[in-house]
Amino acid sequence: MKKLDELQDIISEAVTKLSFPICPAELYEPISYILSMGGKRMRPALLLMACDLFGGDVDEALAPALAIEVFHNFTLMHDDIMDNAPLRRGRTTVHERWNKNVAILSGDVMLIEGYKLMMQVKNNLLRQILDIFNNTAVGVCEGQQFDMEFETRQDVSIQEYITMIRLKTAVVLGGALKIGALIGGADLKDAELLCNFGENLGIAFQLQDDILDVYGDPEKFGKQVGGDIISNKKTYLLIKALELAKDDRSIELTGLLVNKQFDNTEKVTAVTNIYNSLEVRQYAETEMQDYADKAFKALDAINLPEDHKQYLRDFADGLMVREN
Amino acid sequence: MKKLDELQDIISEAVTKLSFPICPAELYEPISYILSMGGKRMRPALLLMACDLFGGDVDEALAPALAIEVFHNFTLMHDDIMDNAPLRRGRTTVHERWNKNVAILSGDVMLIEGYKLMMQVKNNLLRQILDIFNNTAVGVCEGQQFDMEFETRQDVSIQEYITMIRLKTAVVLGGALKIGALIGGADLKDAELLCNFGENLGIAFQLQDDILDVYGDPEKFGKQVGGDIISNKKTYLLIKALELAKDDRSIELTGLLVNKQFDNTEKVTAVTNIYNSLEVRQYAETEMQDYADKAFKALDAINLPEDHKQYLRDFADGLMVREN
Repeated sequence: MKKLDELQDIISEAVTKLSFPICPAELYEPISYILSMGGKRMRPALLLMACDLFGGDVDEALAPALAIEVFHNFTLMHDDIMDNAPLRRGRTTVHERWNKNVAILSGDVMLIEGYKLMMQVKNNLLRQILDIFNNTAVGVCEGQQFDMEFETRQDVSIQEYITMIRLKTAVVLGGALKIGALIGGADLKDAELLCNFGENLGIAFQLQDDILDVYGDPEKFGKQVGGDIISNKKTYLLIKALELAKDDRSIELTGLLVNKQFDNTEKVTAVTNIYNSLEVRQYAETEMQDYADKAFKALDAINLPEDHKQYLRDFADGLMVREN
Repeated sequence: MKKLDELQDIISEAVTKLSFPICPAELYEPISYILSMGGKRMRPALLLMACDLFGGDVDEALAPALAIEVFHNFTLMHDDIMDNAPLRRGRTTVHERWNKNVAILSGDVMLIEGYKLMMQVKNNLLRQILDIFNNTAVGVCEGQQFDMEFETRQDVSIQEYITMIRLKTAVVLGGALKIGALIGGADLKDAELLCNFGENLGIAFQLQDDILDVYGDPEKFGKQVGGDIISNKKTYLLIKALELAKDDRSIELTGLLVNKQFDNTEKVTAVTNIYNSLEVRQYAETEMQDYADKAFKALDAINLPEDHKQYLRDFADGLMVREN
């Protein structure tokens, strides 16, 4: 079996070889630009990994893997417009470097280019794989819409939050694995189990990200600790705290969210204290573990040799940091 | 053979029955909203017409026809953002009624929904039809990009302009006819001839539109005469005039384009006088006739009974007003 970093390298190499028409330049240059920003290429690597695990030829899965990467970058290009983001991976975003119209239209073409790449599969798999791709793509858009709506809503439930992160981030992981498995020769049942593994692992990973934002080791986490608190991001922790806080503590928490008088360090400390007193970290870790368990349960049921499953378990363990 | 208005009615009826999820509301409501604005449903009706002409069952072509309509409305939703358009067909545009983010994301989902509808064809046609759809969709995006670029360029050539209108408006007509023909059982050669007919007719139609903006009967035309002149739109007439005008006339024309001192009526009269003196109308009509001739030549070569071809000739004649 090929190692994950080997698969990531295959993708990175193939991404640099993707070529688009020269003209109109403002339509195609932003596509090469955003793809050149790099990133871990995790989604397409997972697609190749799934193909490889079922004994398939990863070369056959390369175009669909690139489709997933192009699609993912299409969503980033449009999300950056919607979020008014000036930077992505330290570089100017497309709508800032060119303008919003360029970012809208280049993104549209990327989605179509994604379909063109995804269609490079054998005829007997074409419909099935495009169905998965359609559902994945719709899911991501729904997730982004929920995410935007949540910014202005104060009554988001944990269930709604889980639905949002499932749609926005987990379904692409599941979809990529499912497509790769089918190309690799898996039957539908195993492909769906692997999809299930990926989706639940994706949710667990996002919950871990929420926890690490507050409780992570700043050196290992690589982001500003408390960043979500500063920006009032509706993470699992905040939603749970809003749900659990009563009376004075509820007033204090709401005050921390709406008042601008606190400096960032004060705010992070105060909100973290509330989280601690309500034990929201424990709730989050239990929920995260539930989803990790679901992922491993799906994995156990897949009809693959034990060493192949162990490979996936190791991969999942690598994702879940388990700092505590 | 079914009449065009009958086919348009079938589409209008089917569009009202298209249903999308209720939630997230801001993602799906704009889709139903823009589709409810109506319009002539010409593109999907052409798809059904092509299927019908080759003896196919129009019911089988209904989902792909709706795909073309959904796709067309996706382009309108995104174009309206890019053009800052407050109104479409007398109603508030999506980005004005909701906001730009909603219009971006709903448009994205519409493109995906377009693929879902287009995939509702028999397996043996799936790849071929999606290839046509991909090429059509990319073409429309390229055309929109050229159109935006032309707004700020003063050196657009006639050839570039024809390329732009071919991509932005004509390829969808050709693509719709080609897809419909294939569903109806046409062989590839006839489907391509019909596509060729549609594309060239589309270019002729757009050139006619440019001419009618200046020389049309206001009552028949249904738009403000001179609208393109007032907005400095780079039509065939303006591009040709910029190419032909020399010395004083060139200075006068450029002045009319850049100075804001003229009122609209003055400007329309002055520019029209320049057009008349340079005989750009005659150039435009010759070019239009060339494309109409190409369309009819392709039509003649199609392997269809004579009365079917006459039906298409009558349809084309109906589009080309020939006021002169």
